[in-house]
Amino acid sequence: MQNCLVAQSGGPTAAINASLAGVIRGVKESAAYDKVYGSLNGILGILEQHMIDLSETICTEELLQGLTHTPAMYLGSCRFKLPDYRDDDSPYSFIFKQFERLNIGAFFYIGGNDSMDTVLKLSEYGTAIGSKVRIVGIPKTIDNDLMITDHTPGFGSAAKYIASSLLEIAHDTFIYAVKSVTIVEIMGRDAGWLTAASALARNEYNTAPHLIYLPETNFDKDEFLSDVTRLLEKQNNVIVAVSEGIHDAAGTYISCGESIEDTFGHSQLSGVGKALEYLIKDNISVKTRSVEINVLQRCAAHLASETDLSEAFVSGQKAVTFAEAGISGSMVVMKRTGDAPYTIEYEHAAIKAIANEAKKIPREWINASGNDVTQPLIDYLTPLIQGEPTIPFKNGIPCYLDVSHLLSGIGY
Amino acid sequence: MQNCLVAQSGGPTAAINASLAGVIRGVKESAAYDKVYGSLNGILGILEQHMIDLSETICTEELLQGLTHTPAMYLGSCRFKLPDYRDDDSPYSFIFKQFERLNIGAFFYIGGNDSMDTVLKLSEYGTAIGSKVRIVGIPKTIDNDLMITDHTPGFGSAAKYIASSLLEIAHDTFIYAVKSVTIVEIMGRDAGWLTAASALARNEYNTAPHLIYLPETNFDKDEFLSDVTRLLEKQNNVIVAVSEGIHDAAGTYISCGESIEDTFGHSQLSGVGKALEYLIKDNISVKTRSVEINVLQRCAAHLASETDLSEAFVSGQKAVTFAEAGISGSMVVMKRTGDAPYTIEYEHAAIKAIANEAKKIPREWINASGNDVTQPLIDYLTPLIQGEPTIPFKNGIPCYLDVSHLLSGIGY
Repeated sequence: MQNCLVAQSGGPTAAINASLAGVIRGVKESAAYDKVYGSLNGILGILEQHMIDLSETICTEELLQGLTHTPAMYLGSCRFKLPDYRDDDSPYSFIFKQFERLNIGAFFYIGGNDSMDTVLKLSEYGTAIGSKVRIVGIPKTIDNDLMITDHTPGFGSAAKYIASSLLEIAHDTFIYAVKSVTIVEIMGRDAGWLTAASALARNEYNTAPHLIYLPETNFDKDEFLSDVTRLLEKQNNVIVAVSEGIHDAAGTYISCGESIEDTFGHSQLSGVGKALEYLIKDNISVKTRSVEINVLQRCAAHLASETDLSEAFVSGQKAVTFAEAGISGSMVVMKRTGDAPYTIEYEHAAIKAIANEAKKIPREWINASGNDVTQPLIDYLTPLIQGEPTIPFKNGIPCYLDVSHLLSGIGY
Repeated sequence: MQNCLVAQSGGPTAAINASLAGVIRGVKESAAYDKVYGSLNGILGILEQHMIDLSETICTEELLQGLTHTPAMYLGSCRFKLPDYRDDDSPYSFIFKQFERLNIGAFFYIGGNDSMDTVLKLSEYGTAIGSKVRIVGIPKTIDNDLMITDHTPGFGSAAKYIASSLLEIAHDTFIYAVKSVTIVEIMGRDAGWLTAASALARNEYNTAPHLIYLPETNFDKDEFLSDVTRLLEKQNNVIVAVSEGIHDAAGTYISCGESIEDTFGHSQLSGVGKALEYLIKDNISVKTRSVEINVLQRCAAHLASETDLSEAFVSGQKAVTFAEAGISGSMVVMKRTGDAPYTIEYEHAAIKAIANEAKKIPREWINASGNDVTQPLIDYLTPLIQGEPTIPFKNGIPCYLDVSHLLSGIGY
């Protein structure tokens, strides 16, 4: 029997370890694979030979459950872009030698768009050298911007956190009988899925967020000020949900402070909330504050969506099944097969159509004025945040899996 | 039989409605009082005659339970300072006329230091005019800075949120095998109780926060940089918990941006996290980010402490019992009577020793270097965050009580 290797990459989510747990379960149930190794810090762990035997580390059902509920990457992450193998095949030849050394039959990479670039490159190199190692991607991103799949594991939990937080911020806001504007800044550079999820905070008594601005449309300063002014005429508190990636018609980001490019050439943004806060303070005489929904939107496992965790887990299991069936150069995708009740099926899609692409919100799911979402988007989002997992607590705080193995190595 | 009147004031907490629910239950069980009215937006509701009959509004056990778990003020809040009645007794005479009109035998004010100023002034005026209306304060503040009482309702839930969030941020931080510093900014202007609670995030595998800076000691920029540098020599990720109110030896706040004074003359601070982030970026070549634990630390009822909610509820009940026994010009206080197991008793204390005072962390509960807390403080804090209430969810988000009555009035 051959073994498997799995790694995690990109930014944290509350569900990425559920997919890892799904892979471990999948390998355990597989007739084709024996052990499952985990590479620490993504693909870097193979290059640096930092690998652990997950069949030994996660050896009980209790540990597997604990892993499922633990936020961020149990195996650590990396932001590492492989070179084109036609320019430099040295990392590739090293990686495939490790595959051989550990008798790896399948490699699973759990990640988002950039991680799927790694899956694509490894599978192309594998094909070129005639390797039989299956390379399968498992989707993960709070951004929900992967192509083909109906949605991405990790998104539902972030969406649930954002909707719940927005409702709590609304309760916090309504207490003063004075006019006020609250700007809530939400992650999302190119796609507004997460910010759109703030609309799920609306219920029988809460109409907030009253305005929603997404990167899919152009942001107009004057229209924004007029939207806010109009609302303040009929109500005391205006709550605005805004994506970090909003930009004007010229494509310039609305944000404060410097813009720094990361490894993948993306601008690192911050401060659109502050920028809008100052804009309102300068133009409308009203109490204004901005709240940045910080990194907790991607790591608050205590408020994960059970639907999300369960789908993430099954995605991991399916990756093993697909590899066993000979699938490679592909990513697990979810296809929505029903709305009432909500049902999905798991399939696989060629990685070439997924890597480095980003799925945006369709224009018709945003209202004409570009300041709210429409009902079909709410209907699409609602099933994804359903269900509350039972998270164990110990001594008053959530009880997650020990990740001290990530702390032992001093840097790459 | 006489009636009661209750109001809420100051900033939101996750437990202030539990105290309101306790008052409602207390009145229901009382042989001396009939109805309980609620004044909307604190003392302003009496002055504007915006009052509701809570005996009618919260008429079932289900609504009482819902109220207990709903964050922020069900009755709304205000930031209103009564004048000295010797300078201007007009609001006082109006308020006591309303007491008479509604046949009020006891008035309960749920709030923090500033709200206790209102309790003090009303009770002094009441004594001066020979009124028989009992004026009783019920403590509430996430800041835990009220005198005499062992701790304050609302603090335990905020502390639990902060400790849990810090653990989740640690998981988020540990994933990259590169050197990094994360600054976590926590509320607390003059007292560091909330920031100290971040130490409760430490467990078998997590030693973060690695540094804790509180307003009780002077912050020294050079010592801070040297603390961070020293830690970075032995570990990849340094996580720093810092109170918004830290200041240098001259008393100058360490923060970015302007300082604006609120109604009570407090400086409104923001940006100490950003200030330290830039300080590190300018002096140490390392990846740095700052995370502001925003308003959710005071309104995230989904992560409330059961101990806190239950103590807040009983504090409300006890206020009714005390009023019935003739107590006035006092606040309900908690006295810790045991550590293992943790036990408390409810007493009352004269409001004069509480209003406008702030309780700071004793110096011996902070280490000599002023960059961490000591074990006695951790022992003091630990019981307060224990227990997880069962919060109902509906459609994927927490199910709280309808607060639309707060939205109907257009400003005072």
